Amino acid sequence: MRLHEIGEFGLIARLKEIVWRADPRVMVGIGDDAAVVTYERPVVMTTDALVQGVHFTSETMTPKLTGAKAAVATLSDLAAMGAVARHLLVTLALPPDTDVEEILAVYRGMADVCNMYDATLVGGDVVSTGGPLVISVTATGELLDKPLLRSGAKPGDILFVTGDLGGSAGFLHAFFADRLAMLNPLDQSLLRERHQRPTPQFIAAQILVEEGCTSLNDVSDGLASEAHEIAEASGARLVIEAARVPIPPALRAYARLGRLDPLDFALYGGEDYQLVGTVDVRSVGRVLARMQAAGVRFTVIGRVTDGAPGVELLAQGVYQTLEKRGYNHFGAAFRGGKEIR
Amino acid sequence: MRLHEIGEFGLIARLKEIVWRADPRVMVGIGDDAAVVTYERPVVMTTDALVQGVHFTSETMTPKLTGAKAAVATLSDLAAMGAVARHLLVTLALPPDTDVEEILAVYRGMADVCNMYDATLVGGDVVSTGGPLVISVTATGELLDKPLLRSGAKPGDILFVTGDLGGSAGFLHAFFADRLAMLNPLDQSLLRERHQRPTPQFIAAQILVEEGCTSLNDVSDGLASEAHEIAEASGARLVIEAARVPIPPALRAYARLGRLDPLDFALYGGEDYQLVGTVDVRSVGRVLARMQAAGVRFTVIGRVTDGAPGVELLAQGVYQTLEKRGYNHFGAAFRGGKEIR
Repeated sequence: MRLHEIGEFGLIARLKEIVWRADPRVMVGIGDDAAVVTYERPVVMTTDALVQGVHFTSETMTPKLTGAKAAVATLSDLAAMGAVARHLLVTLALPPDTDVEEILAVYRGMADVCNMYDATLVGGDVVSTGGPLVISVTATGELLDKPLLRSGAKPGDILFVTGDLGGSAGFLHAFFADRLAMLNPLDQSLLRERHQRPTPQFIAAQILVEEGCTSLNDVSDGLASEAHEIAEASGARLVIEAARVPIPPALRAYARLGRLDPLDFALYGGEDYQLVGTVDVRSVGRVLARMQAAGVRFTVIGRVTDGAPGVELLAQGVYQTLEKRGYNHFGAAFRGGKEIR
Repeated sequence: MRLHEIGEFGLIARLKEIVWRADPRVMVGIGDDAAVVTYERPVVMTTDALVQGVHFTSETMTPKLTGAKAAVATLSDLAAMGAVARHLLVTLALPPDTDVEEILAVYRGMADVCNMYDATLVGGDVVSTGGPLVISVTATGELLDKPLLRSGAKPGDILFVTGDLGGSAGFLHAFFADRLAMLNPLDQSLLRERHQRPTPQFIAAQILVEEGCTSLNDVSDGLASEAHEIAEASGARLVIEAARVPIPPALRAYARLGRLDPLDFALYGGEDYQLVGTVDVRSVGRVLARMQAAGVRFTVIGRVTDGAPGVELLAQGVYQTLEKRGYNHFGAAFRGGKEIR
């Protein structure tokens, strides 16, 4: 069934069923001019949008995975602030001949993520477009304690990341180079998972709130760009040790085959939705122990040093200045209507 | 200067200057993963999107007017809930060759509206698209008292609207029919204003919160559609008296010239951003007096009667069932890529 056959109101009626969820904080949910919700603590607000052909394609993502990833991209910002997720608003700009089942699948993906992280989809807007599908997700959260900002990194702190980096970009590279089949099936599915099923790092964030961190950012545009944001906001100098950056073995295998540098994917690829930040050196042991106990991969990748604000990369004994480069929507890296990012 | 020349980070730096505003409720503003804000009362959340070629065109709107209208479209939902505006998040999906000045003008328009209604733009997202410009505005507000819902209309209540209706759709009709010049200059500019500069009805909303109303909705898709929403949510039967519907004289003049029914624009046109609702008959006198004192046009256009839920139109002594029709994004009314809505 095509969207123009059931219309805006028919669509909204179906979406309501998919996203319905009991939430005592919701005084007014979907179905009036706006939602009304209650909070006990300061509210964190953020928004993130995915555009078909720029952030996702029908070849690399299913509609349900796309919906889930759109929600995760936004929730990842809440985790990076030290907040838990509360309420989502979703705007979809859709061509009128879109298949209704596809749209419902997008919302099913978002509803799954909401259920997993105790968030509730309370409203949104559905509009028609003559262009590509745009999914814009706004989310609110509540701070667990003080906000975890990008500023606050100081000389002597260690620099860390959660999870591993570069897998999402590695998958896209392998997919569009038509080289995915060169990997063994396990590596193929690992890379695919990194791209298709990112997870917001709420568990790590809660530990960082409780144990303290001096700066925190989520890795949406690549480690280089995110480290620069911390350096700028903190007025600090960061050193990243190349050999310490956690890279998935499947990405290493792919890079070997194509004679590529796997570190490039971690530094400039983006869409990992892991956390990068700094902690006081005296807290590292406790944070590391709690991360391990919670099953969160946590890797020290460098440190904060004296010197002018900026980011350095230490590779094979040589320090080099790391460019502030990553996925930049309108910069030279942008690839017009080409279905790759 | 084109957007791809300054890139995402260059753009964001300029936008921050435009939207900066002192707000003691903002703990963390633009520049981190998310904003952090505080509220004293329940939070109202809503979102609305405008798509170039569907909701606005470069012929009928300037970028600054478009930005202002995008903000107003969202704030209008807050007014209709009995809330005041607090914080905005804005997502722009932009083709990379967009002129930077145009984008800044969009934000200037939004900043003007924020300043006027004591709201603060605290963040957003800027993404690239190969398709039309999409402006998605999410806003939060705080309830003044209880939320004003669509449900609650009961037999004996009167039905009212603020302002006048149909002018925005009338302007588009005249513009695309190339008949605007047939009107005198004053009527031309009145119709243009209705389309280009809608205002959220916060003053009326505050009076309705204080004096009580049994149901409330904003008129974004046309009176017929909005009245049906009240009838459905309240399980009530509404009668609209055609002769009472306030129609701007300029629209009457245009309709006469083209042998059109001006009421059609009011019923099915949309984008008026006025309020429609019901009040107990015993409150009408007080509400009317306060609206007049506040300079808000307030018109009784009908009543709530016994009978099955629905909406009737009383015209020239004859009752007829009013269709639930208005601007429906994916229904038969949708006009693909044509630059008109």
